Amino acid sequence: MRKVIITPNVNMWSLGSVLIEVGNTKIICNVTFNENPPDFCVEKQQGWLSAEYSMLPAATNQRTRREVTKGTITGRTAEIQRIIGRALRGVVDLKAIPGIGITVDCDVIQADGGTRTASITGACVALEIAFSRLLADGKILTNPMQERVAAVSVGLINHQVVLDMDYKDDSHAEVDLNVVMTESGKLIELQGTAEGAPFSKTDLDKMLLVAEEGIRKLITIQRNSLQPK
Amino acid sequence: MRKVIITPNVNMWSLGSVLIEVGNTKIICNVTFNENPPDFCVEKQQGWLSAEYSMLPAATNQRTRREVTKGTITGRTAEIQRIIGRALRGVVDLKAIPGIGITVDCDVIQADGGTRTASITGACVALEIAFSRLLADGKILTNPMQERVAAVSVGLINHQVVLDMDYKDDSHAEVDLNVVMTESGKLIELQGTAEGAPFSKTDLDKMLLVAEEGIRKLITIQRNSLQPK
Amino acid sequence: MRKVIITPNVNMWSLGSVLIEVGNTKIICNVTFNENPPDFCVEKQQGWLSAEYSMLPAATNQRTRREVTKGTITGRTAEIQRIIGRALRGVVDLKAIPGIGITVDCDVIQADGGTRTASITGACVALEIAFSRLLADGKILTNPMQERVAAVSVGLINHQVVLDMDYKDDSHAEVDLNVVMTESGKLIELQGTAEGAPFSKTDLDKMLLVAEEGIRKLITIQRNSLQPK
Amino acid sequence: MRKVIITPNVNMWSLGSVLIEVGNTKIICNVTFNENPPDFCVEKQQGWLSAEYSMLPAATNQRTRREVTKGTITGRTAEIQRIIGRALRGVVDLKAIPGIGITVDCDVIQADGGTRTASITGACVALEIAFSRLLADGKILTNPMQERVAAVSVGLINHQVVLDMDYKDDSHAEVDLNVVMTESGKLIELQGTAEGAPFSKTDLDKMLLVAEEGIRKLITIQRNSLQPK
Amino acid sequence: MRKVIITPNVNMWSLGSVLIEVGNTKIICNVTFNENPPDFCVEKQQGWLSAEYSMLPAATNQRTRREVTKGTITGRTAEIQRIIGRALRGVVDLKAIPGIGITVDCDVIQADGGTRTASITGACVALEIAFSRLLADGKILTNPMQERVAAVSVGLINHQVVLDMDYKDDSHAEVDLNVVMTESGKLIELQGTAEGAPFSKTDLDKMLLVAEEGIRKLITIQRNSLQPK
Amino acid sequence: MRKVIITPNVNMWSLGSVLIEVGNTKIICNVTFNENPPDFCVEKQQGWLSAEYSMLPAATNQRTRREVTKGTITGRTAEIQRIIGRALRGVVDLKAIPGIGITVDCDVIQADGGTRTASITGACVALEIAFSRLLADGKILTNPMQERVAAVSVGLINHQVVLDMDYKDDSHAEVDLNVVMTESGKLIELQGTAEGAPFSKTDLDKMLLVAEEGIRKLITIQRNSLQPK
Repeated sequence: MRKVIITPNVNMWSLGSVLIEVGNTKIICNVTFNENPPDFCVEKQQGWLSAEYSMLPAATNQRTRREVTKGTITGRTAEIQRIIGRALRGVVDLKAIPGIGITVDCDVIQADGGTRTASITGACVALEIAFSRLLADGKILTNPMQERVAAVSVGLINHQVVLDMDYKDDSHAEVDLNVVMTESGKLIELQGTAEGAPFSKTDLDKMLLVAEEGIRKLITIQRNSLQPK
Repeated sequence: MRKVIITPNVNMWSLGSVLIEVGNTKIICNVTFNENPPDFCVEKQQGWLSAEYSMLPAATNQRTRREVTKGTITGRTAEIQRIIGRALRGVVDLKAIPGIGITVDCDVIQADGGTRTASITGACVALEIAFSRLLADGKILTNPMQERVAAVSVGLINHQVVLDMDYKDDSHAEVDLNVVMTESGKLIELQGTAEGAPFSKTDLDKMLLVAEEGIRKLITIQRNSLQPK
Repeated sequence: MRKVIITPNVNMWSLGSVLIEVGNTKIICNVTFNENPPDFCVEKQQGWLSAEYSMLPAATNQRTRREVTKGTITGRTAEIQRIIGRALRGVVDLKAIPGIGITVDCDVIQADGGTRTASITGACVALEIAFSRLLADGKILTNPMQERVAAVSVGLINHQVVLDMDYKDDSHAEVDLNVVMTESGKLIELQGTAEGAPFSKTDLDKMLLVAEEGIRKLITIQRNSLQPK
Repeated sequence: MRKVIITPNVNMWSLGSVLIEVGNTKIICNVTFNENPPDFCVEKQQGWLSAEYSMLPAATNQRTRREVTKGTITGRTAEIQRIIGRALRGVVDLKAIPGIGITVDCDVIQADGGTRTASITGACVALEIAFSRLLADGKILTNPMQERVAAVSVGLINHQVVLDMDYKDDSHAEVDLNVVMTESGKLIELQGTAEGAPFSKTDLDKMLLVAEEGIRKLITIQRNSLQPK
Repeated sequence: MRKVIITPNVNMWSLGSVLIEVGNTKIICNVTFNENPPDFCVEKQQGWLSAEYSMLPAATNQRTRREVTKGTITGRTAEIQRIIGRALRGVVDLKAIPGIGITVDCDVIQADGGTRTASITGACVALEIAFSRLLADGKILTNPMQERVAAVSVGLINHQVVLDMDYKDDSHAEVDLNVVMTESGKLIELQGTAEGAPFSKTDLDKMLLVAEEGIRKLITIQRNSLQPK
Repeated sequence: MRKVIITPNVNMWSLGSVLIEVGNTKIICNVTFNENPPDFCVEKQQGWLSAEYSMLPAATNQRTRREVTKGTITGRTAEIQRIIGRALRGVVDLKAIPGIGITVDCDVIQADGGTRTASITGACVALEIAFSRLLADGKILTNPMQERVAAVSVGLINHQVVLDMDYKDDSHAEVDLNVVMTESGKLIELQGTAEGAPFSKTDLDKMLLVAEEGIRKLITIQRNSLQPK
């Protein structure tokens, strides 16, 4: 696994923010809130949390056209921001934030593989900061975060399991598996895709074992990032 | 598993078509082709296959607004058509269709849960028909389909494994796992999401076992659907 | 005139539905309702009815790009859904559905000419079913449909009047006249276009005579489609 | 019929232009050309002519929002620009303008009913000017305009036939019939709509007689507008 | 400076209107109002004024594609309508029009340079007419216009100062300076751009002197345009 | 003037990059290039340079909705990216980059006033780095940058001249003047706007003097930022 650094409080305006670096991948995660959660929250007496994801045009090897120029987000962006939202909602008790809409923005400053998993890992810490502020301000009464969540990619390259693939690995991988797991070792989301040849249940089991170990390290890094130094 | 009926050749214009019914879910799958695959195919000397997915406005319990009225597809649609495309590309040798772009359209006529998995299962048969016509017309020289592929959803409801959830089941499920598997029992795509509480590796294993059995039945139905009666 | 089959109740969710087949042209018509008619209805103490029309991408000879991909409906679609809406409103007493907004969706599954006229003929029956349900549920007090309406195309090909043109006829026609007429033989909409050479008043009279006969047959088929068998 | 004034050559840049005033309705019609007709023209060895229609926001009783603000043209605009295009193509020999794409812009400066018919009547004169310039410049060899075309609306108000309805008439009319007719009295387009109650064949015949007389007057005004004074 | 003609009251529907001609540049300015100013006006107890700008497609040397066809306004249009709005708000006391939203539409009928400055000069007069009507109707109690405002472009061509550049001048200018000034000689907006080589403070001073003289003449023409003749 | 820090080479992929901090305002400027300049460059035998500007949603006091969600850039963004592009083109010899299209992306990470001027100042350094790489790679033969350019805002608050306004100052300023000036003290762009009351020529002169001093300091910081430390 590449070196992971989580720097908290990188933004003066947002409720919670971190810069997460996973190797050369760098993402700014910001948490903001408003008091207008979607309509369906009212009768359910709960709040909501959704995520948005974007990349700076120059974050990639070749400059990527801004999505606003095309007028709409790509399918890839839609897929990624939905998985980030589901991952975070998996550890947040929405009943504990009634009347509150949380937005998590993950903006990729530099991309070198694993941006969706790094977004989840970073956003979890930004969310922790945000919730502690909402608690301090009396906006919420209990901490809505039930446990930490982190995510990692694991792949098969030449039949070998590889943890935390960078851009170059990713383009050679036969299988790409994204694992979102909680501090207590439970799964929230699992997305496995065979890029070339289909994979067996045995391959899946091997990859999950390696992923679990990676997640455990990430959770430790998350925890340490908020300790006073 | 609900009753599955696959009716081939429901469209006079397209290269391959089926109507797949999975319980009350009804989807028309059409395969068309053109001779303009995306640019990146040229240097790779291969063809391409992509999928589009849509629902008739009245296909759902409450009428859904047409996506063209909003001006763009939803995140859900983007996510689904990407998974259909990856699932089918997983069993197609793109090198065997150089200079050819295949489009698979999955249009949901009536929705009652499991539309993304039924789309994959139906589209595989429509593709089989389409490839046999391209072979007959001499447009391609070998059959690009390496084996069949089918998909099924499996969930946890009250800690019980449930195969092939309808709309009502789906809204109660704690975990929703979509499994895309080939005739030979290999995985192409795995998407598991905890809707409420996270799930364990043991839950995953149980669900995968049930899914595998469902896939085997679907493959048999696919095979029979093209037999002369 | 080609063979016309109207199959009622093809959708489990909508208020009224039919599949209409006119030769190889196949269209699903669904009627849904909501309790939010447009604002201008409030002071007029009436309801509203509007129509939407679309074709599956593979419904035509060459695959048609989805309108959502272009981000907007084409001029042809706009023109067609406006004529369907006006035709149906021509036989519906909007004062009898106060506080109700009716949407009629006409989705072409397979196109072989005459989709706009078949949409009107089919939608009239779907509307009849829908109104009888609203009456049964006590949502409305009187039947808002004043009489049936049907539509047919008639053209001039080599100076000969041709009733109900299919796609091939249509591409050879010198004049294309769409006639929307009620059960009592009154006109609601008339759209005649010279595709090549202009046409005379005498041609118009001849075409209208033939159209009227076609409409009479369609009305009979509409009436029979709802009879118990 | 209201007073009609056609002032030619109101624009220094375009190939042909007129300001047409029909009562208080004022429309600027401009004809421009380019050497890139649509692709389908190449194999047919012909040119093309299409029309665009728009209204200044302040042209109507209540300010109308610009269509660009909504991001797309309305159904009404789509319908109108298609009818203008078909009307003009009905008198133009597209084989006589190979390699040429003609655009006719009809911009309503002030609207008081009848803008679609006035657009056609005005655009015919702007086109005549444009073709004479293309002939003078040697861009085309023969005059593509086969005869003049004009359009008028005629309606039924309290069972009386009314020619050339203004905005106020239009809102009371039971039937609105737009007639596009050539100098030689042939029909190019006929669009009749019952706004309230359906209409009979006898009503249609009466309205067509009155329309024909109106068209004849308009053709005279068109002819005179280009005479030296 | 080219000949300037301001013709008031060219539109029967709007609250205030003028046609301004500056040489061959012709622009219709219309002022309309509604009783829904933007939300932020409520707590500030003020009204609002914004401007929209557009060109007819055939207003320019080469036909310009309609912005609605592209689906969005160009950067140039956005820039121009913002400067028109700021210029007019600079002389209007928004506190004197509480609950009122003013829209100023500047539509270019024919363009030959200087359309943004002519829009401002014309719109000021249309606004004067509109405010006198609102006063007469008792919609407002005091005249919100504090003084007149006009605008002019001035440039450097071959190191010479040129006032009021037409399209041809503009394409040769080294510097293009747009000056928005009030009747009392105060600046509201200054936009200077070096098209080729940067310019000195001395150049700026020279250009401002010439601009001031031009503005004075324009203010006189504005004043005279509303005098009875 | 607030503290200004320019950190070069913050991105591993782009041709030239800096992070510019002006007080709490933080902007990443990236320069990329392609070999497809706009069509009009071909006959002029030159290259092109354009700029894009965006803000992260959480960069501001209140979260800003992403422009892609609205489907189009705002007028403010359009205005800003046009001024950045003009400012940079003002010191670049486009004839020296034939066949090259340069894109400058300015992405605001944190905003506290003065983002458009900081973008220009930062982008100039990123461009310097980019050009030295293109020279080293032999893609261009001479340095296209003729001199440095920097930009600063200056305002009037309570009749006092204030240099480099932050967000709080900006909201109180009576006049906001953005000055783009070269190393040799020449003006490239000048944008002055009266926010409340109009301003005099004397005010303008005072503000320009202060701006010039600020620019001189910025040019020194730009120069030092690329010195080895």
